Amino acid sequence: MALIVQKYGGTSVGTPERILAVAERVKRWREQGHDLVVVVSAMSGETNRLIALAQAITSDPDPRELDQMVCTGEQVTIALLAMALQSIGVPARSYTGGQVAITTDHSYTKARIEQIDDARMRADLAAGRVVVVAGFQGVDVEGNVTTLGRGGSDTTGVALAAALKADECQIYTDVDGVYTTDPRVVPEARRLDRITFEEMLEMASLGSKVLQIRSVEFAGKYNVPLRVLSSFKEGGEGTLITVDAEDTMEQPVISGIAFNRDEAKLTVRGVPDIPGIAYRILGPVGEANVEIDMIVQNVAADNTTDFTFTVHRNDYRKVMSILESVAKEIGAREVSGDDRIAKVSLVGVGMRSHAGVASQMFATLARENINIQMISTSEIKISVVLQEKYMELAVRALHTEFNLDAPATVE
Amino acid sequence: MALIVQKYGGTSVGTPERILAVAERVKRWREQGHDLVVVVSAMSGETNRLIALAQAITSDPDPRELDQMVCTGEQVTIALLAMALQSIGVPARSYTGGQVAITTDHSYTKARIEQIDDARMRADLAAGRVVVVAGFQGVDVEGNVTTLGRGGSDTTGVALAAALKADECQIYTDVDGVYTTDPRVVPEARRLDRITFEEMLEMASLGSKVLQIRSVEFAGKYNVPLRVLSSFKEGGEGTLITVDAEDTMEQPVISGIAFNRDEAKLTVRGVPDIPGIAYRILGPVGEANVEIDMIVQNVAADNTTDFTFTVHRNDYRKVMSILESVAKEIGAREVSGDDRIAKVSLVGVGMRSHAGVASQMFATLARENINIQMISTSEIKISVVLQEKYMELAVRALHTEFNLDAPATVE
Repeated sequence: MALIVQKYGGTSVGTPERILAVAERVKRWREQGHDLVVVVSAMSGETNRLIALAQAITSDPDPRELDQMVCTGEQVTIALLAMALQSIGVPARSYTGGQVAITTDHSYTKARIEQIDDARMRADLAAGRVVVVAGFQGVDVEGNVTTLGRGGSDTTGVALAAALKADECQIYTDVDGVYTTDPRVVPEARRLDRITFEEMLEMASLGSKVLQIRSVEFAGKYNVPLRVLSSFKEGGEGTLITVDAEDTMEQPVISGIAFNRDEAKLTVRGVPDIPGIAYRILGPVGEANVEIDMIVQNVAADNTTDFTFTVHRNDYRKVMSILESVAKEIGAREVSGDDRIAKVSLVGVGMRSHAGVASQMFATLARENINIQMISTSEIKISVVLQEKYMELAVRALHTEFNLDAPATVE
Repeated sequence: MALIVQKYGGTSVGTPERILAVAERVKRWREQGHDLVVVVSAMSGETNRLIALAQAITSDPDPRELDQMVCTGEQVTIALLAMALQSIGVPARSYTGGQVAITTDHSYTKARIEQIDDARMRADLAAGRVVVVAGFQGVDVEGNVTTLGRGGSDTTGVALAAALKADECQIYTDVDGVYTTDPRVVPEARRLDRITFEEMLEMASLGSKVLQIRSVEFAGKYNVPLRVLSSFKEGGEGTLITVDAEDTMEQPVISGIAFNRDEAKLTVRGVPDIPGIAYRILGPVGEANVEIDMIVQNVAADNTTDFTFTVHRNDYRKVMSILESVAKEIGAREVSGDDRIAKVSLVGVGMRSHAGVASQMFATLARENINIQMISTSEIKISVVLQEKYMELAVRALHTEFNLDAPATVE
């Protein structure tokens, strides 16, 4: 007897048949006595179809009008799902973001939710109805339609769960949970039963694209238990993302291994070691709208310093040419770079209370003759940058070393 | 310097190229100093695509959810047109029915407009913007989306024009005006510069499908000058539909000839001529949801009467079987019928002040050896029912007789 918010993505509602399958699943949850609020995305392909129409009109569509148009994708799905539920005997009613009402700020195409009125949803739930809500959208105080940006439907799900103080927010995707690492790289990767919000954030920011970072942040902030489940496999438990509560069983040291080969590394050598030098190097890069990821600086004996940082691989050329002129201005010796790198990270709240994780990691990589180019650490993460060609080897070796491999199943 | 409401149908906005062409046309009107509110339908085919999606879910979709979904068709068009206007330098903003706000009753799929708030439109017009509004839709007082039913976009245009006290409501279609009769039947048919609301209603109800009856009624009620124009031919004057004002030039006797071959005729003979007999015959027909058009009754010398009426041809079999049982109950002699009939009508407010129109009509038909089966008259219309095979001949002869033929153009 719980209040559950479920969110189904575009692939899960991609055809009328799949929408009917979602309706059947919702019905089974309801038959177990639960109250249900269901958030859906646009049918897969629909948002792109709409954007292509806009592009056929103008290469630079007005954001307000783009939102006015794109939000119709989800609006079609909510109506179809409500019809599907009714057709199998489940009372249901659909609401757009504006109808709920989900109030956002005025930032078209990347709005932030400011307030949710739960009165209509509560009334429907009390009347025994399933509430179907359009993801990804809201309205500003003047009634203009806004959209929440990429992954916005996940955010809608979490926000509704927070507003309704739901017992769980279930995110249905095409994977059956969060894995210790990408099973395409490590076949022995295991599904995690549980992971903390912080760990999930570190995994997500490193390329585990199961959930959008923003929705995980949101869930963490409002303490909404979040569960990732497969919308195609029935009966799985998925992965529960939750706070690191005192009473949970002892955490493993490492929960997962994330990796990312979308980055490039740039180094400015022989930089005079004077105050403000980091800003003189990174300021122009930031102004060019390039996001900087890892930064490492080391002071040499001769009062100069080497300054290294990573950016998205697509920005490599642009940043290189910025650095070449910056280097001249500040009297640095040389600029070098490498866009064939990869980042590998161990993630786990367990490392807070376990010493020696870093040295165990470095020893493992050394044993495989993998050279570490950069190191960066946080409370629950250790990241290393290495040559791209060693990435899979590094991930597999670490996966085994930290006991993440799934036990071999006996036939 | 006028306030003009323009309405473009689905064909006129059927592709991005056509939407851009509509934007160019709106721009030209605006450059003449006019304020513009533009109402658009869904892109042609879109509403059917959406309904097909609903049908793939259930054969009996909930009307509320159907409206929630179908209204997205117009919502996409308004955003695209606003983008198109902006891309050619015309400030514009789009509004759904709910955003305007157009408030309707609760009758999903066939709602009636109850109120229109003109504040947002006035503010945009004052700021120099073109206002683009989704046709066909509104919201009830609880914020549920409703649609106005077939031809609803015309009604939206007229209703906005009435609310704004616009100088003119222009309906852009794929024909360039209202004709004296169907040019496919009479090549000499002429476009009318002007026609009264009453005449237009009579023409429309008889199958001239240029405008929806409801929007003409609405325009007449609120005295909104309505102009039918071609969205593909530039520069035409179209046809102005307006009240029969005192100061207009002398009306021609006949404005147009309408015809309809969708009807069937049924006759009950030898009916006892007692009070209440019409109800005993027509009551069961109405209860079967069949609409009755013309009714003729004649009393014979032997105190019995013959009772004839017409219905839509699709209802012919159904009504025949109803009448057979009714005839037994009331002791009528026999029931007969004919579904190969056509109705031809002269329409014109001029006949109010001109005697002899009917006899001139009958004489013309007699000259062509066409037998008249039924006659029905109103203030501004004379209708006759005749054998279907004579329809074209009758229309052409009357078109010439009442001086409706276009003058032969001299090369």
